Amino acid sequence: MALQDYKYEHFLVDSPAPFVAHVQINRPKKLNAFHRAVWLEFRQVFDRLSADPEIRAVVLSGAGDRAFTAGLDVQAAGGDFANASSPDASRNATALRRNIEEFQDSVSAAEKCAKPVICVLHGVSIGLAIDLATACDVRICAEGTRFAVKEVDIGLAADVGTLARLPRVVGSLSWVKDVCYSARDFDAGEALSVGFVSQVHKTKADAVAAGIKMAAFWGEKSPVALQGTKELINHSKNHTVAENLRYTTIWNSVMLQSSDFQTALMSGLSKKKPRFEKL
Amino acid sequence: MALQDYKYEHFLVDSPAPFVAHVQINRPKKLNAFHRAVWLEFRQVFDRLSADPEIRAVVLSGAGDRAFTAGLDVQAAGGDFANASSPDASRNATALRRNIEEFQDSVSAAEKCAKPVICVLHGVSIGLAIDLATACDVRICAEGTRFAVKEVDIGLAADVGTLARLPRVVGSLSWVKDVCYSARDFDAGEALSVGFVSQVHKTKADAVAAGIKMAAFWGEKSPVALQGTKELINHSKNHTVAENLRYTTIWNSVMLQSSDFQTALMSGLSKKKPRFEKL
Amino acid sequence: MALQDYKYEHFLVDSPAPFVAHVQINRPKKLNAFHRAVWLEFRQVFDRLSADPEIRAVVLSGAGDRAFTAGLDVQAAGGDFANASSPDASRNATALRRNIEEFQDSVSAAEKCAKPVICVLHGVSIGLAIDLATACDVRICAEGTRFAVKEVDIGLAADVGTLARLPRVVGSLSWVKDVCYSARDFDAGEALSVGFVSQVHKTKADAVAAGIKMAAFWGEKSPVALQGTKELINHSKNHTVAENLRYTTIWNSVMLQSSDFQTALMSGLSKKKPRFEKL
Amino acid sequence: MALQDYKYEHFLVDSPAPFVAHVQINRPKKLNAFHRAVWLEFRQVFDRLSADPEIRAVVLSGAGDRAFTAGLDVQAAGGDFANASSPDASRNATALRRNIEEFQDSVSAAEKCAKPVICVLHGVSIGLAIDLATACDVRICAEGTRFAVKEVDIGLAADVGTLARLPRVVGSLSWVKDVCYSARDFDAGEALSVGFVSQVHKTKADAVAAGIKMAAFWGEKSPVALQGTKELINHSKNHTVAENLRYTTIWNSVMLQSSDFQTALMSGLSKKKPRFEKL
Amino acid sequence: MALQDYKYEHFLVDSPAPFVAHVQINRPKKLNAFHRAVWLEFRQVFDRLSADPEIRAVVLSGAGDRAFTAGLDVQAAGGDFANASSPDASRNATALRRNIEEFQDSVSAAEKCAKPVICVLHGVSIGLAIDLATACDVRICAEGTRFAVKEVDIGLAADVGTLARLPRVVGSLSWVKDVCYSARDFDAGEALSVGFVSQVHKTKADAVAAGIKMAAFWGEKSPVALQGTKELINHSKNHTVAENLRYTTIWNSVMLQSSDFQTALMSGLSKKKPRFEKL
Amino acid sequence: MALQDYKYEHFLVDSPAPFVAHVQINRPKKLNAFHRAVWLEFRQVFDRLSADPEIRAVVLSGAGDRAFTAGLDVQAAGGDFANASSPDASRNATALRRNIEEFQDSVSAAEKCAKPVICVLHGVSIGLAIDLATACDVRICAEGTRFAVKEVDIGLAADVGTLARLPRVVGSLSWVKDVCYSARDFDAGEALSVGFVSQVHKTKADAVAAGIKMAAFWGEKSPVALQGTKELINHSKNHTVAENLRYTTIWNSVMLQSSDFQTALMSGLSKKKPRFEKL
Repeated sequence: MALQDYKYEHFLVDSPAPFVAHVQINRPKKLNAFHRAVWLEFRQVFDRLSADPEIRAVVLSGAGDRAFTAGLDVQAAGGDFANASSPDASRNATALRRNIEEFQDSVSAAEKCAKPVICVLHGVSIGLAIDLATACDVRICAEGTRFAVKEVDIGLAADVGTLARLPRVVGSLSWVKDVCYSARDFDAGEALSVGFVSQVHKTKADAVAAGIKMAAFWGEKSPVALQGTKELINHSKNHTVAENLRYTTIWNSVMLQSSDFQTALMSGLSKKKPRFEKL
Repeated sequence: MALQDYKYEHFLVDSPAPFVAHVQINRPKKLNAFHRAVWLEFRQVFDRLSADPEIRAVVLSGAGDRAFTAGLDVQAAGGDFANASSPDASRNATALRRNIEEFQDSVSAAEKCAKPVICVLHGVSIGLAIDLATACDVRICAEGTRFAVKEVDIGLAADVGTLARLPRVVGSLSWVKDVCYSARDFDAGEALSVGFVSQVHKTKADAVAAGIKMAAFWGEKSPVALQGTKELINHSKNHTVAENLRYTTIWNSVMLQSSDFQTALMSGLSKKKPRFEKL
Repeated sequence: MALQDYKYEHFLVDSPAPFVAHVQINRPKKLNAFHRAVWLEFRQVFDRLSADPEIRAVVLSGAGDRAFTAGLDVQAAGGDFANASSPDASRNATALRRNIEEFQDSVSAAEKCAKPVICVLHGVSIGLAIDLATACDVRICAEGTRFAVKEVDIGLAADVGTLARLPRVVGSLSWVKDVCYSARDFDAGEALSVGFVSQVHKTKADAVAAGIKMAAFWGEKSPVALQGTKELINHSKNHTVAENLRYTTIWNSVMLQSSDFQTALMSGLSKKKPRFEKL
Repeated sequence: MALQDYKYEHFLVDSPAPFVAHVQINRPKKLNAFHRAVWLEFRQVFDRLSADPEIRAVVLSGAGDRAFTAGLDVQAAGGDFANASSPDASRNATALRRNIEEFQDSVSAAEKCAKPVICVLHGVSIGLAIDLATACDVRICAEGTRFAVKEVDIGLAADVGTLARLPRVVGSLSWVKDVCYSARDFDAGEALSVGFVSQVHKTKADAVAAGIKMAAFWGEKSPVALQGTKELINHSKNHTVAENLRYTTIWNSVMLQSSDFQTALMSGLSKKKPRFEKL
Repeated sequence: MALQDYKYEHFLVDSPAPFVAHVQINRPKKLNAFHRAVWLEFRQVFDRLSADPEIRAVVLSGAGDRAFTAGLDVQAAGGDFANASSPDASRNATALRRNIEEFQDSVSAAEKCAKPVICVLHGVSIGLAIDLATACDVRICAEGTRFAVKEVDIGLAADVGTLARLPRVVGSLSWVKDVCYSARDFDAGEALSVGFVSQVHKTKADAVAAGIKMAAFWGEKSPVALQGTKELINHSKNHTVAENLRYTTIWNSVMLQSSDFQTALMSGLSKKKPRFEKL
Repeated sequence: MALQDYKYEHFLVDSPAPFVAHVQINRPKKLNAFHRAVWLEFRQVFDRLSADPEIRAVVLSGAGDRAFTAGLDVQAAGGDFANASSPDASRNATALRRNIEEFQDSVSAAEKCAKPVICVLHGVSIGLAIDLATACDVRICAEGTRFAVKEVDIGLAADVGTLARLPRVVGSLSWVKDVCYSARDFDAGEALSVGFVSQVHKTKADAVAAGIKMAAFWGEKSPVALQGTKELINHSKNHTVAENLRYTTIWNSVMLQSSDFQTALMSGLSKKKPRFEKL
């Protein structure tokens, strides 16, 4: 496969199973913290995977033992927001608006990626870690992961996705507000019990292996079905039931003409593993 | 009561308690699978119950020991989607659109039914079973129920309600996406822990009895209050808080003029069981 | 501080910790039940706290041992809805509409309060108690609390907030409909397991102490960050992800120019407690 | 063609041009007024035309010289709303709600009809006439047409479509409110100048001929293109630009695979009249 | 009637016809410009008229010959926005937000007024004049009126209603953007041709007389019908057709039980002027 | 100024007045028709102008005497949509979806451009010409312009913006549907009378001069005010009045802190031309 061409400065991308890409944030010495160059590259990686017919499922994790990501690399990112130096608040605001939009768009690339993304968290997973994790589809983690919606502690409201998505991702709004207002840590057990993560594994290695196994299982499915399911669930969270049903009708009016439908039916009858065309 | 007139080919309808209808999908030899004639009849049953003043609560279950429903009767339903035979994709799409809409409308009849509906699941409860269950109000099940959002395994995204409603019905989006992407089985315990079902009972008989007991309890309540509560909660899931409060205001500006309000207050003071007029 | 000036007939307001207001519903002999004068005063209290720069977090509880609130004081409130006496249903409806709107607006004052509100429940917490609790941000309770969405039992659909907010506050819609249709009691353990409350404490005193401790912890945070977080989460529950991200961008384009950002960063580096300007 | 099978009690349906149906309200002695049987039949006619592959455009007019329609046949319709006889306002409301929904659904059949509908108005065109006309796509009229949004004069707010659609159909909200509040007459010239109608013709016969000519012109177009255009414009009026663009993308991702695209291109090059397959 | 009790510092309120209130902005020496005390009083006047059963229609005009209103009284209003004096942009923003909301709410009182409002413009009608006019229902003016959306010329985007409502009030978005970007004057003829106003009269006196005549005509109508029509058209501009139809159904399910319906029918048959109960 | 660096293959960009950019589609021999390379460049040009502090207003026109644009360059664009060659309709649809999105995003760049855009049309202005024109803010044209929403005549529904925006741009929906269904030509006079264009000039040269004059007039205004006005009007067309007012409040809570506000006030008092800082 052509994943060998995915060469990036801040990310490692390989393919541990057929149709699966594993993306690692690769700044372990910096606790995988982000600055502008990192988030722009993050977007490039996911935009490319989204359109790559060789890939049907993605795992996102952080390199090294210590952190999925510790959030913003404040030192390195200092300059990224530095234009707020005009004496005119409205002109500063315009500059900041452009920065925030660009950063939001980068994080949203995981949500917009046509293929489902599993986020595997471990170690320090604070601030931006939650923004990234909520933009993914399924979350699993290692024991010992330290989670926190940390933004209030640096004097701001989280603005690249956590506040938009966390209330859609877990059921208890009381819990969401507790962790967002207090910026307190929560651990893997708490994350599991509120439904933020779906699985907790002993070690980071176990968690990554479980993520890859899940992705590999998805990778055997019809890509038409899998990508359609992601699209329609994400649409559902943003629309009424009636609008989602209508949109689904239009979507499936062409997707049901896919050969995958026949392929899946046939392989179901013959008990053989189906082979689906690229998408 | 007049439920004796509810004669249908694929459904059994009786009244095990005052104001309660029990609807059973009645194709046990076919694992209660649906084809077009079945879903059209399903809609007729629920549209009729919705307007029947003798009925205040409904229980939906599947006849026989093996299945609530195994989903589509692929053999029998083969012809239902057969019109996709034109060489012109847009004309196929138009035909498919009409089929999907009709099928969606049938499933939605449980949601649109003015009276609350309890879905009792047991045995094989896959594919369409989840679409039907999420269109009902409360879900309870028997131990040993085998649940699955099965559509991905037949090469398509679920299109008659599961993807629209499941994210509104349980809190953990990570779990929703896990079961929808993987098409994996989940059992009664898992269904309970994520909040998909509210109760698990030893046997199907126990679960049905519990469903009927719950429906009978509701049946003693003011039908004005009960139907208003269903309407307003369903509205709430599709609108902002402000819009729902406004809609509620208009709704209750007439409903508070109901005699049920007086009846309930009086019986509360006198400790007698209230008797409400038909609705 | 100036909370000494918060003199109200039906509420006690004091400040048990820096930047924290504790509001107690103060009609213990009447189980803290509400009539029109009470809810109008409730709104005054929260509107005032919302704009008071001395306050950064609020605790709401009920005075006395027996009840957070038993709901409407039917006797006293009798007259509040009495104008429904015209023989003309449309004119009654117009009068009722004004009453309901006023009552809804009063309850919504807790949600609109710019500062986060912790609701501490104990004892009898039925009917209006749930409307109030869901309009707050975080809910905690004492063991032995008796919860119920009681409105169906008095012949009406809840209309001052429960049906609008409860489906947003907990994840399991099956549970929401169960308790709303049946008007049955549920206890602290059930409330915790479904995510309605975040903590359960032995006694009312423990629960109030825990609420105050949480509020005091929040009170040390940047008020710009804290109030922004409340605003953006509440916005998120009513809008699409895309709309919320956009709104967040505009909001933070000015809020990131706050001195709190610098103050928080500096105190993080120096390990000193930050001191934020009033807001 | 098979329009000869369109036999109805209150409507005449014929085909004055290829692919065109002309529907006439056929109660000229009653000024084409509607009661329940009429509006139920209206829905049947349009639902059938919507799915009839022989038809690509529809003209709606009123038989006789005197009226397009004078609105409700109050005498005959008396019984249609008569169930409002309970002493209980909430039960009356429930009955009325069902009546209004059914009537709205009937009128909306013109809007939901997959094929575009031209409404030709003449003579008395008041009350329901405006509801019907705004549910159609294009409006033309004869000189001497007497228009009025008449409902306020019978003590009610228009409820089967005028208030929902008129503000979307003409640009000046000041004019919309003027005619809706006052129930005053307006004539063909005024209707043209505000954009309510697109053409005014000398006589009813001229107007009908013009309507048929326009429909015949549309009938020569690609039905895939024509029906898609209706669907997408109607969607546009109810959604944001971004949502409409997305919906359009999905819609055209299959519709561009139509043979009509090739057929139209080819006939454009060869200057021959294209012949499109049925839809 | 009791309008004699409407005593205000900045407004004259009298009743030139049965059921009609005429509200005049009464600062002619200051070209009827607004500062904070004026807009707070404006809200009081309209909130009171909204609930006053003696009033069914309202006319709003400006006292004196020179202006409907010249907008903000910059001198007097200087202090109203003066709190923007903190060196902290986020704290200034919070203060400004409260000011803008209060001002918006005041202007919106005309839109929220349950009774329809006719705005009669003359002379200088710039800036706030357009915000006020678009919050009214029908606009008429005198020849020689000088209109302008003036805000861009004082360095800001209009923020108390013009940008929100003007695109809903006239049809041509090209024209809306032209006048809003350029801040150029437009005259009565242009206002009429784009549909911003419905009538142009020779003099201010003629325009006021025409406004009062129109209001008096409305005042003879069923107040249930009139107020319902305003509510439903305003709702329509903010919702989809489907949502508006649903809302209309609930609204009319009680309003059709009004005695006005019978009264209007009867008087129609007997050719007598109907007399409706207060609302 | 630095516009000299705006070197593009298919567009000419110069600055005929301070702060004004004039963008000409520069394929006059091909009637300014577009293929993929053209629309990708179109987006680049407008994205760059959007962020260029030297530019405050933009004019878009077509080079040469014959056409603003004749739409798609079918020959050259043939390959752009050629991937629809799989026998699998769902895979074709996926490829088409990506193409349509990219094309839509390109056209939308004019709408998203922070600076207002005047579209000057002349000669052949069909198909894509309308998509482009409706994405601009103000439209003016030369006599003799030939307009048509041409897509139906090539067998498809317009999909890069016309159907989404035209119903928001002119008031008469009857007219919109007439021209979209029929694909008929309309001329400058008709375009003016329905409000599609704001001005008609004798010649193309006159129209371009008028566009530049209008842009130059805007260019003298506060850029904070001008860009805010564009943002808020566009937001208004996609949201409710209440949502737009709220968004406006947040927007202006920082924008009112701009120095432009002071600058404009001062220059108003001193009757001097204001000089605003870059934005």
